[in-house]
Amino acid sequence: MAASAPSSSSSSSVAGADPNSTNLRPPGSSYDAWCGVAHGCTRKLGMKICGFLQKNNSLEERGRTVGSLKERTAKNLMACDNAGGDAHFRRTETDFSNLYARDLLPSKNGEEPTMQFLLEVVEILTSYIRKTFDRSTKVLDFHHPHQLLEGMEGFNLELSDQPESLEQILVDCRDTLKYGVRTGHPRFFNQLSTGLDIVGLAGEWLTSTSNTNMFTYEIAPVFVLMEQLTLKKMREIIGWPNGEGDGIFSPGGAISNMYSVMIARYKFFPEVKTKGMAAAPRLVLFTSEHSHYSIKKASAALGFGTENLILLNTDERGRVIPADLEAKVIEAKQKGYVPMFVNATAGTTVYGAFDPINEIADICEKYNIWLHVDAAWGGGLLMSRKHKHKLNGVERANSVTWNPHKMMGVPLQCSAVLVRERGLLQGCNSMCAGYLFQQDKQYDVSYDTGDKAIQCGRHVDIFKFWLMWKAKGTVGFEQHIDKCLDLSMYLYDRIKNREGFEMVFKSEPQHTNVCFWYIPPSLRGMPDGKEKCERLHKVAPKIKALMMESGTTMVGYQPQGDKVNFFRMVISNPAATRSDIDFLIEEIERLGLEL
Amino acid sequence: MAASAPSSSSSSSVAGADPNSTNLRPPGSSYDAWCGVAHGCTRKLGMKICGFLQKNNSLEERGRTVGSLKERTAKNLMACDNAGGDAHFRRTETDFSNLYARDLLPSKNGEEPTMQFLLEVVEILTSYIRKTFDRSTKVLDFHHPHQLLEGMEGFNLELSDQPESLEQILVDCRDTLKYGVRTGHPRFFNQLSTGLDIVGLAGEWLTSTSNTNMFTYEIAPVFVLMEQLTLKKMREIIGWPNGEGDGIFSPGGAISNMYSVMIARYKFFPEVKTKGMAAAPRLVLFTSEHSHYSIKKASAALGFGTENLILLNTDERGRVIPADLEAKVIEAKQKGYVPMFVNATAGTTVYGAFDPINEIADICEKYNIWLHVDAAWGGGLLMSRKHKHKLNGVERANSVTWNPHKMMGVPLQCSAVLVRERGLLQGCNSMCAGYLFQQDKQYDVSYDTGDKAIQCGRHVDIFKFWLMWKAKGTVGFEQHIDKCLDLSMYLYDRIKNREGFEMVFKSEPQHTNVCFWYIPPSLRGMPDGKEKCERLHKVAPKIKALMMESGTTMVGYQPQGDKVNFFRMVISNPAATRSDIDFLIEEIERLGLEL
Repeated sequence: MAASAPSSSSSSSVAGADPNSTNLRPPGSSYDAWCGVAHGCTRKLGMKICGFLQKNNSLEERGRTVGSLKERTAKNLMACDNAGGDAHFRRTETDFSNLYARDLLPSKNGEEPTMQFLLEVVEILTSYIRKTFDRSTKVLDFHHPHQLLEGMEGFNLELSDQPESLEQILVDCRDTLKYGVRTGHPRFFNQLSTGLDIVGLAGEWLTSTSNTNMFTYEIAPVFVLMEQLTLKKMREIIGWPNGEGDGIFSPGGAISNMYSVMIARYKFFPEVKTKGMAAAPRLVLFTSEHSHYSIKKASAALGFGTENLILLNTDERGRVIPADLEAKVIEAKQKGYVPMFVNATAGTTVYGAFDPINEIADICEKYNIWLHVDAAWGGGLLMSRKHKHKLNGVERANSVTWNPHKMMGVPLQCSAVLVRERGLLQGCNSMCAGYLFQQDKQYDVSYDTGDKAIQCGRHVDIFKFWLMWKAKGTVGFEQHIDKCLDLSMYLYDRIKNREGFEMVFKSEPQHTNVCFWYIPPSLRGMPDGKEKCERLHKVAPKIKALMMESGTTMVGYQPQGDKVNFFRMVISNPAATRSDIDFLIEEIERLGLEL
Repeated sequence: MAASAPSSSSSSSVAGADPNSTNLRPPGSSYDAWCGVAHGCTRKLGMKICGFLQKNNSLEERGRTVGSLKERTAKNLMACDNAGGDAHFRRTETDFSNLYARDLLPSKNGEEPTMQFLLEVVEILTSYIRKTFDRSTKVLDFHHPHQLLEGMEGFNLELSDQPESLEQILVDCRDTLKYGVRTGHPRFFNQLSTGLDIVGLAGEWLTSTSNTNMFTYEIAPVFVLMEQLTLKKMREIIGWPNGEGDGIFSPGGAISNMYSVMIARYKFFPEVKTKGMAAAPRLVLFTSEHSHYSIKKASAALGFGTENLILLNTDERGRVIPADLEAKVIEAKQKGYVPMFVNATAGTTVYGAFDPINEIADICEKYNIWLHVDAAWGGGLLMSRKHKHKLNGVERANSVTWNPHKMMGVPLQCSAVLVRERGLLQGCNSMCAGYLFQQDKQYDVSYDTGDKAIQCGRHVDIFKFWLMWKAKGTVGFEQHIDKCLDLSMYLYDRIKNREGFEMVFKSEPQHTNVCFWYIPPSLRGMPDGKEKCERLHKVAPKIKALMMESGTTMVGYQPQGDKVNFFRMVISNPAATRSDIDFLIEEIERLGLEL
């Protein structure tokens, strides 16, 4: 390392940021004074402060390439080198170009490099977070797969046999963020999961630091209890008496929905667990043609077959028509099939439609069919006194999927499946693995949740959610939900009669989904018909491609049934404001004008 | 807030740590000088430094209760208050008792509190990390569920309607860690996943900050490519020509194993996807009686039925006897069943046994049966030139489960299922959801992986693993594996002839699993028989309970077949050394002496 680099350049780069400050000492001495004072404290504290000063020294303008980082680091080190001769300062360890993973904890003397490495990572992350919320930054810096694979300015994705220096690792961290997508950016509207909740993020950092596993109370005592209390609270909000019932957090809505089908089957045909589907009659399932494809995936995976999943017709807004359900149930029974499971969606993926749960529940009760409510997307509305009526009847469901990682802004992954009848989850999934769920432990083993799960090891998804709930309160989630729904009404009102915009369905949105076409001027005079449809079908993909290439905003599009590609705007991002909605509208017009 | 608190007490608490230092200025002025200099730099930098000084001021000895934190914060604030009147210092915002989640980004003026809150969290986490590697700290501070539920010194798990202050949130973070289990502690041996890899941890912090989703290249371009390259590298290591094939990261080994059964069924009976299990003959699966219970869970979930999972006999060391497999295959065929799937385990959960893959593969080829290798635990040995021979024949498998979150020390969750034949994953799971996997995007949509998965949203599990691989190199993983296996041999050698210890099986361990009974002096003279067995069965649970209550170490125990409770020692923790093995042995003797 460049131990001979002049110290003054580093000092002045710190002080040079505001040379007119009246508080400022002469550049060289001020930096030395800090380090001197730092050394005067406990040695550890001194080291930390100097490490911190080095880090902040070149904050923001730090170069991304290895060369420039190395150069700066060397300068910083030298500045501190001049500041005092404390042997415990270990300044050589802050040159990340000579440090490797093997030098970190648990290695002997690994504590100081570990702390400095982690603080450097945090510096990268906090810088990223600040930029994420800054509207002057791009949402993404788009590159094609082949471009990233070829290597961007030294960002090489290939793995190698030999270790890279921690300096390179830090550069890789910066590059990974640089070429990624800022899903927390106020103008990122592309998915149902958007936003970057700071308390949730802190929760995730803690979760990964604790690096444990939900399967037993033994190694996750606090998290297991948090999960239990939070699930109870969610069941209370659903409306089950005293929050009774059961539930578990799973890796996502698709798995939660899969659980619901498994549990329903276990309830009606428990012998399938041991004897397989051969032990059951021919079972059929029902779900909306607008429902999430995970119901179909579950039908395939669990051995029902996708042809035995019967799709229900919907009205113009994408809501199940209950009469169609009843007709299809009767038809299936007449054919000798056994209707076993109905999925009602509370918040469909594209239209944001809420199926009429009460009317569906009536039919399920009449024919003794399991009612599942897939509220992965719409469950969040239960937190809002204003909007919860859209899920009226959810308390009649036998099971509910609810993803806090969608509308409630919890970092991904955070999905719960809730079950009204206690014992089914355990009965369905228990295999009594003696090596994990010993019955002769010293604590109450009913708190060991692992045997309820289809997983063995299970990631801790609860803590960030629990922490956010503590930090916001139920009222905080309510405010977030109400604000997002207000914003979607604002968008709807702004475009419903705007020239060049056409709504996919006429009425007000039930959820934050606003579905619309943008009709470029060149298509506006055209008669309806095949040619217009074909051309319109290409508009949204083109605008989306231009959006991504300019990096200004992101919003999803898709066809649905016989409707050609349209935009699906969704708002779950707490950073979004009316100005961002205005921006989106104008950006679509700007990019689509010449198409 | 207590704005009238005296400033001098805070200053002296910083400086007081080393009053004899010759570099030290008078306490009061040194702290002021720092803040003064800090203000002389850019304002942001100044704020950050003062924020940092405040944090480190009360480092380590900071009280956990709200009261004391509040008091200290007030003092710190006051100290900086005296240091200068810069209006941009926003010192009121560093009093977390008056700050709430709503004050953080994206709120207006949220940047500074956000940074200070996150740095405070990082301070808590780095303090925890230092203690985790410190053998003088406990592995855990055990409490029963009812104790934690009743609330420990102000640690209240209940959720409320109203928000808590960020000060309370920080206290909750500390308490959550305090009452948890330090899975990275050098003496934590309780699970297959142990240790706290610093680079992996940094990777997780970055992953959660990026908060995105693996389902499309569109929103996870870098991570999708990292996954692709890493899976290819893993396939090369397995030995498939040019690393060809397919694969995906899943939420854990149980789900990876479930994938393998689904893919096998799709390969042989693709019509099950649409028509259900009714379209297939009666299918049977085979796995060792020592295999992981997730194979049984998959049999139940996917509609085969656990009775159609045929358990294979093992030898004394827990390895499948190939002749038993062939006999059972023939028997099943004679009964008219169709043998479809064989699971060979590379590293069983309890014994760490490696089934003889080549001999099993011969049988699978002979009878046209899918061969899956569950190398969730043993896969890491493929990284070691010395130990990879234990998986000889793995290249003949049709699919392989390999969990980097076990033996390779990657933070949980990180599990891969690898498939030799390309296209099956996609064929098996694809549902062509138009709203997510549009075919008219501007980039090569073959990089969109979502339709291969049984999940929709999928957490980013790749980055930490990729980053660790970069940082360690293949050789770094090899060294870790070799070291852990050496340690287990050390343990084996130390106890195999030691008085009071008895091995569950005689020969050297194949993996790091060392299974043994501790026989307390009171049982040593007893004749073998029912009474001794009954008493011995209670020894391991008692010692384990004492371990947990004293918090000194953790190791697993279980019965297996006709063998009463024995300890299963496993070593995957990079922090463990011979001294920790010695400690474990002596601790078992100490705690078991009087039983």
